[in-house]
Amino acid sequence: MKTAIIGLGLIGGSMAIDLRKAGLAAMIVGVDNNPAHARRAAELGLVDEVVGLEEAVKQAELIITAIPVNAITNVLLKILDNVSGSAIVIDTGSTKSLICKAVEKHPKRSQFVAAHPLAGTENSGPDAAFSGLFSHKTNIICEKDRSSENALEVASRIFSALEMRTIFMDPVEHDKHVAYVSHLSHVSAFLLGQTVLDIEKDEKNIFNLAGSGFASTVRLAKSSPDMWAPIFEQNAEYLGQALLEYIMHLQKFQYHLMKRDVKELHRIMTGANHIRKVLEGMDVKQKPNQLVENKT
Amino acid sequence: MKTAIIGLGLIGGSMAIDLRKAGLAAMIVGVDNNPAHARRAAELGLVDEVVGLEEAVKQAELIITAIPVNAITNVLLKILDNVSGSAIVIDTGSTKSLICKAVEKHPKRSQFVAAHPLAGTENSGPDAAFSGLFSHKTNIICEKDRSSENALEVASRIFSALEMRTIFMDPVEHDKHVAYVSHLSHVSAFLLGQTVLDIEKDEKNIFNLAGSGFASTVRLAKSSPDMWAPIFEQNAEYLGQALLEYIMHLQKFQYHLMKRDVKELHRIMTGANHIRKVLEGMDVKQKPNQLVENKT
Repeated sequence: MKTAIIGLGLIGGSMAIDLRKAGLAAMIVGVDNNPAHARRAAELGLVDEVVGLEEAVKQAELIITAIPVNAITNVLLKILDNVSGSAIVIDTGSTKSLICKAVEKHPKRSQFVAAHPLAGTENSGPDAAFSGLFSHKTNIICEKDRSSENALEVASRIFSALEMRTIFMDPVEHDKHVAYVSHLSHVSAFLLGQTVLDIEKDEKNIFNLAGSGFASTVRLAKSSPDMWAPIFEQNAEYLGQALLEYIMHLQKFQYHLMKRDVKELHRIMTGANHIRKVLEGMDVKQKPNQLVENKT
Repeated sequence: MKTAIIGLGLIGGSMAIDLRKAGLAAMIVGVDNNPAHARRAAELGLVDEVVGLEEAVKQAELIITAIPVNAITNVLLKILDNVSGSAIVIDTGSTKSLICKAVEKHPKRSQFVAAHPLAGTENSGPDAAFSGLFSHKTNIICEKDRSSENALEVASRIFSALEMRTIFMDPVEHDKHVAYVSHLSHVSAFLLGQTVLDIEKDEKNIFNLAGSGFASTVRLAKSSPDMWAPIFEQNAEYLGQALLEYIMHLQKFQYHLMKRDVKELHRIMTGANHIRKVLEGMDVKQKPNQLVENKT
């Protein structure tokens, strides 16, 4: 399949590597509005050729967008307006409601698949791309009934080749759940980083005192603001709710801490310990290559 | 050196393994008031023999305590009251002010070294112990001037054998700094876990949607409440300050989020990104086997 990848960062670049490896993308053209990223992606051999968006849309049988969510809506409409009747378009953005809404009435809606492969690292740009990023992770497809059978079939081949398990969700449900299990983690890490940087003006103390626990908890604070600011904006309502609940939990904890109510602190932590079972389940339950209907 | 380890969990057990490996502890007796842990530590060969505290103190030339901080003060006084004039006692607890205060006037204070090896995982108990836990991490010694030269020399040999770098700090400074770079990370992870568990009552959604970013951010929520509740209590004042600042940062972020002020969100995240340099410095700067005076 002649493939165009729009956005040659961590997601787009890693897809290019593994789709080529799987023999699914014989020829890959790439588009990036950052000339340095475009050049670097070509240098790294992620794509065969860097072209303009128009040129890419004209040539490709499969078009994958992997760009910040604030740019997707416009680019996606432009792609659907110009794409041939047989090409398939897949988006990979981290929010889905606005994007699904924007293309809802487009005459070529059925050629489009609204996806969200749940994979990433704190690094970005073409140099961050690597083989295996998506392996054994979950992919979400929203509004599958609005995509044609052929489009879903192509998407299924793509995500199976990436060794992902795909589940289906309503876009609003998607945005709500990722607010809690993904976006909130990022906010909590960003502000933990900020708090510690603020207080430890002399960074030597962080070098000296921060252990692997701190490094793990704060890791996501290294993530790209260019990517995450638009995600937070698009998901402001649900992220706002999640953040409010998180703050309330923290304040309740602080109240018991100030009262030296160790029993209550212990009780709260014992409840949170339950996350161990959930995380262990994550490792076990993620089997690749299945298209499973989400039951909730 | 005939060594007694009081508390046979992750810290005590891992010390036993590596001190034996390094040839520093020919014979190790162990004490644990949890009979199951004591039995398990013997089974795993962490210790040569499980004995009572009194017996251990009578026999050993080196006594290391690795028990929850709420129990240390009592146990430590009992040890110092009964220890021979030549034995050395090292504590490894995560708070240092109260402990240093408790033994300040003890006639055998100089035989004691107040240490805090900054190492750990989210797991606990003898089964969690492993070789290399302490390697290339930082150890803190407080009130070194109250320990005898001989005691410091023994401690230096111990922590060097564990491949740790030791720095010296005032106990109040210690408690303040670890509130930010260690204790706050734990609280933020515990409550992140709680928030997500609360909202995602149907845990299947966490299995499906949680990525490696969430797993990393929430990892410390698996930590032992028995260990952490007393640490939080002892460090309630500084942890309370850190927590308040964290909550204020989160609320400010939420305010900008509610206003859809993406520019300000971006600015905050860009500031937090600076933690990348700090964390990369952590990897590079931690060289073992040095006793370095802390300059602040």
